[in-house]
Amino acid sequence: MISEKMYELGTNPSVIRDLFEYGNKRKAEIGADKVFDFSIGNPSVPAPACVKEAAIDLLQNGDEVALHGYTSAPGDAGLRKTIAEYLNEQHGTSLTADNLYITVGAAASLSISLKALAEEGDEFITFAPFFPEYRVFVENTGSQLVVVDCDKKDFQIDIADFEKAVTPHTKGIILNSPNNPSGVVIKKEGIEAVCEVLLNKQTEYGHPIFLIADEPYRELVYGDVEVPYLMNYYDNTIVCYSYSKSLSLPGERIGYIAVSDQAAEWKKIFAAVCGAGRSLGYVCAPSLFQQVVKRCMGRTSDVSVYKKNRDLLYNALTEYGYRCIKPDGAFYLFVEALEEDAKAFSERAKEFELLLVPADSFGTEGFVRISYCVSTEQIENSLPAFKALAEAYQ
Amino acid sequence: MISEKMYELGTNPSVIRDLFEYGNKRKAEIGADKVFDFSIGNPSVPAPACVKEAAIDLLQNGDEVALHGYTSAPGDAGLRKTIAEYLNEQHGTSLTADNLYITVGAAASLSISLKALAEEGDEFITFAPFFPEYRVFVENTGSQLVVVDCDKKDFQIDIADFEKAVTPHTKGIILNSPNNPSGVVIKKEGIEAVCEVLLNKQTEYGHPIFLIADEPYRELVYGDVEVPYLMNYYDNTIVCYSYSKSLSLPGERIGYIAVSDQAAEWKKIFAAVCGAGRSLGYVCAPSLFQQVVKRCMGRTSDVSVYKKNRDLLYNALTEYGYRCIKPDGAFYLFVEALEEDAKAFSERAKEFELLLVPADSFGTEGFVRISYCVSTEQIENSLPAFKALAEAYQ
Repeated sequence: MISEKMYELGTNPSVIRDLFEYGNKRKAEIGADKVFDFSIGNPSVPAPACVKEAAIDLLQNGDEVALHGYTSAPGDAGLRKTIAEYLNEQHGTSLTADNLYITVGAAASLSISLKALAEEGDEFITFAPFFPEYRVFVENTGSQLVVVDCDKKDFQIDIADFEKAVTPHTKGIILNSPNNPSGVVIKKEGIEAVCEVLLNKQTEYGHPIFLIADEPYRELVYGDVEVPYLMNYYDNTIVCYSYSKSLSLPGERIGYIAVSDQAAEWKKIFAAVCGAGRSLGYVCAPSLFQQVVKRCMGRTSDVSVYKKNRDLLYNALTEYGYRCIKPDGAFYLFVEALEEDAKAFSERAKEFELLLVPADSFGTEGFVRISYCVSTEQIENSLPAFKALAEAYQ
Repeated sequence: MISEKMYELGTNPSVIRDLFEYGNKRKAEIGADKVFDFSIGNPSVPAPACVKEAAIDLLQNGDEVALHGYTSAPGDAGLRKTIAEYLNEQHGTSLTADNLYITVGAAASLSISLKALAEEGDEFITFAPFFPEYRVFVENTGSQLVVVDCDKKDFQIDIADFEKAVTPHTKGIILNSPNNPSGVVIKKEGIEAVCEVLLNKQTEYGHPIFLIADEPYRELVYGDVEVPYLMNYYDNTIVCYSYSKSLSLPGERIGYIAVSDQAAEWKKIFAAVCGAGRSLGYVCAPSLFQQVVKRCMGRTSDVSVYKKNRDLLYNALTEYGYRCIKPDGAFYLFVEALEEDAKAFSERAKEFELLLVPADSFGTEGFVRISYCVSTEQIENSLPAFKALAEAYQ
């Protein structure tokens, strides 16, 4: 009667969303301050002041028809040029507006890029742990997601395992750094090794393999950490970006796809991106926020709060006996569950009003993800609960 | 190397967009006031004052984190409830928030609804002339679009032809009234006849056939014209709506899907809608405009300008000898081309700086579409060109 596959997707919502909805219910029951909700990556830091200023100025003084009118499908020409110039300045690339396609956020960036590339029988490789919706977007194209486990010591890429996973069917790889859910930034040496494998395999198979860089957390790094810009390491690169995290605008749905001008036949790829956007029902990205983002180029929310939260949480949890990966970026702490079954551990944590996402759906068993994009106060208040949870396992 | 199908979609942009881009170039060459661009359905009337007021108030006084944060995937609960109540009040339905899924505009409403329903081998019927992207969205689901011609006298539905087109593979029909591109409102008798056919065929085949009502132009009707609310005529109805036209917000991408609570297993359909939205990469509709729309429920832009434009253009063109369908709604005039090939006619019109969309891609040959959602001044200034074009054919 209807699509069983879509019904299944709709009735098995992501574990994250599930826990988030549980949290909302629980807060209504016992009070928001009593529930330590670490489930969702909703930035807790407000957007920088330029967002509000730009939006109000545009609403008050902009051309009121054009402001809310359709833009070209790939986005406002001025915004595309501004982003290209910003990226060139930051990373020494040579992009123009013609390489930029503005999207309705990171999920759209990915689903469009995959749809643009995928042909029947294709495979896309990603590295576990990974954002579970990758599987949904890849499968929507009729392709298959191939998962390569990261090294569980440090969650860097295991190059030998990766090399074994590349086949003549590999159309691309999705690389997410800083990583959701581990918070790990893939080191330059790891990137170089991945690119070397890809270059060799391209030559061996005689067709391009694309590197899809999913990097909404690029600006969220703490301390002196370099996040290599993948276009500078590999020609067939497509960068998927979103302003959700850097400008704290997740609900506004605004991001972009940048197709490297060094990619083989990049104009053809860009045209396929336009076709895929059209096919999926994207007409253009929200017009007011296209202009807002243009005026806020290079700005970010105050991410120092996330660093403070990370340090507080990491130090306390390791003191209580948890094993955590120290994250260099994003706003997630990846913590080993205190029993084998991370789902059971997450259920147990609920008894202490701690909402921790079991990482099974991220492709890595035995871990939970803690989103520390919350108020520092919530973290401080939650520490006794984390301590009690650890003690319950002793 | 990449998806040939997506490349094709990206390199054969819609005729409308093509003409729109040509218009922008031409305006840069000879001045905007010299080009009579009737290509695109971009509302020329500004959004009502409540939009600006609501947006500024929310930006100035709203919770600045929640305002731009993720909403639930089907949309803000308050907005969904408000829309349900508004529809109930207007149409005597009994919808609740659970029937409403907020979307990133009409294209998303349609592509998600089709994806939610379609199984392999399915067919969806629509009536020519029709919005060309229907084919793109239907084909994205792997289904086939079946086109039934309207009666060319009045562009109402030819029921006998429609009945012949329904087969055991028919999963649904897409009905767009007021219609883009003809401006015609399907009469109550036509709706009743369509629904009777559907009811009989449902019984005959033993499975539901869905009526997808695409109605972004519902509020844009002129004079004493009734637009029947399809949920009241047929249980298995899904309404696809957008605020693009009624609130003049096409670029902001905000609309909804309403699944009738009278539909067979509507909760299952709604779940599939949620799954399809997820699969296509829609996370939630833009959050600020969810709140704006909530505050502007039941309001519209000043559509009296469109009526004025319609009357001016229709009267002048019929006087010059053009044959036009008098539109009761939307903001399109459907005009018979003055030569057999509408594309050649559209090219000829360009010589007079008139940008008219040949309707071949709408599934009806020999006509052009004139979008009169422009300034009244543009219409007045264009009349000599229309007259000269008609004379060129005498």
